[in-house]
Amino acid sequence: MAEYGRYPSHNYAPSAPPMPDSYSASRPPTEGYAYPPPPTSHSYPYPSPWASGAGGSYFPPGTPPEVIRSFQTVDRDRSGFIDESELQAALSSAYQKFSIRTIRLLMFLFKNPSNPSKMGPVEFAALWGCLGQWQAIFYRFDRDRSGKIDSVELKDALISLGYAVPQSVIQVLVSNYTDSYGRGALSFDNFVECGMIVKGLTEKFKEKDTRYTGSATFSYDDFLMMIIPFIVP
Amino acid sequence: MAEYGRYPSHNYAPSAPPMPDSYSASRPPTEGYAYPPPPTSHSYPYPSPWASGAGGSYFPPGTPPEVIRSFQTVDRDRSGFIDESELQAALSSAYQKFSIRTIRLLMFLFKNPSNPSKMGPVEFAALWGCLGQWQAIFYRFDRDRSGKIDSVELKDALISLGYAVPQSVIQVLVSNYTDSYGRGALSFDNFVECGMIVKGLTEKFKEKDTRYTGSATFSYDDFLMMIIPFIVP
Ligand SMILES: [Zn+2]
Ligand SMILES: [Zn+2]
Ligand SMILES: [Zn+2]
Ligand SMILES: [Zn+2]
Repeated sequence: MAEYGRYPSHNYAPSAPPMPDSYSASRPPTEGYAYPPPPTSHSYPYPSPWASGAGGSYFPPGTPPEVIRSFQTVDRDRSGFIDESELQAALSSAYQKFSIRTIRLLMFLFKNPSNPSKMGPVEFAALWGCLGQWQAIFYRFDRDRSGKIDSVELKDALISLGYAVPQSVIQVLVSNYTDSYGRGALSFDNFVECGMIVKGLTEKFKEKDTRYTGSATFSYDDFLMMIIPFIVP
Repeated sequence: MAEYGRYPSHNYAPSAPPMPDSYSASRPPTEGYAYPPPPTSHSYPYPSPWASGAGGSYFPPGTPPEVIRSFQTVDRDRSGFIDESELQAALSSAYQKFSIRTIRLLMFLFKNPSNPSKMGPVEFAALWGCLGQWQAIFYRFDRDRSGKIDSVELKDALISLGYAVPQSVIQVLVSNYTDSYGRGALSFDNFVECGMIVKGLTEKFKEKDTRYTGSATFSYDDFLMMIIPFIVP
């Protein structure tokens, strides 16, 4: 049993925030939300006839009103889809400033299969639920209440999700997000970005290491296709 | 023989721009420039007593005067080291606008082992020589003289360097750099970024696939440590 994998399968554990596997090129688009739904009811994985009033797209049943309101506030053209700057506006007003870099990663991970540069109600609701879970983890592990996650806090947070990330990786992650004093620390958007990267890469690794040996074999094509989407957004 | 590796070893071939392997955490700092020097003389891999006049740091012998001038112009405090915004100023004036994202990747890849947030004369000269080679490739493969590299041009450029990157990866790469018409196309800094990412990841892959089988096995720690530095800058 390798140290990275404390969970018995590569499915998302309840305490680990869900992240759609939408960057896998080999998967048919109909499988778009094949992951188990997160514990909260507002991320129901398929569209339903419950209309959002926005151009024929639908929010899943049980979507909290504030999620719908947030979406409709930024979708000014009422197209039923929002682009990256609209998503940035929505999340920055609901949470705190989201960098465009984090927004691009989120757009990529939660993209609409039929229109990758836009996000519809279904993806938005799933993302919102997911961010709520990351936020709970952020508050839980920001033990000094600094509003930032430092390297020790990050390591503990990732371990709580089942990811025993080596110290060298923690250092590289944190050193890229420095506060105004040059100390490595992650604001909420940085934390979401790091968390989703570690989670996404670990899940990809586990797919090739089903017996938890701690090592995995990749073809060159799979290797590039798995990594590049995390690098280029 | 896997299709990605047309070169007999994982050393840098003459037509492939060199990139220091400085992100490998497992390598002792004394090996900082262990790669074969590129064909041009101005990237001599070790410091020499040929003073730059800048705070005790040295340019390698044969460094072209314009490289030294460019460095000294941006190193206003004459510390002998430049930071990321100084590097951005130097490269943007020598070439064209370099995005801060590309600059961060370059700082990371060409970092000074003893001071990772700064770049000294040795690293700057190596980077300059490397960029000159990427520029030659850019011009050679921008066949329509658009000033941008499109997906077909990128694929051909990477193949010419020995990297048979699958079409799916080309699409993901290019789709992240769209021109004002929404068409995927790479400006020079985007091209350098993509090229160095593909090159860096391919070299890492080849290190684990020394017999060119087209597949490679990684431990979880190696896997994360190899990829994360490309993702987070
Ligand atoms: Zn809209
Ligand atoms: Zn804190
Ligand atoms: Zn300086
Ligand atoms: Zn062109």
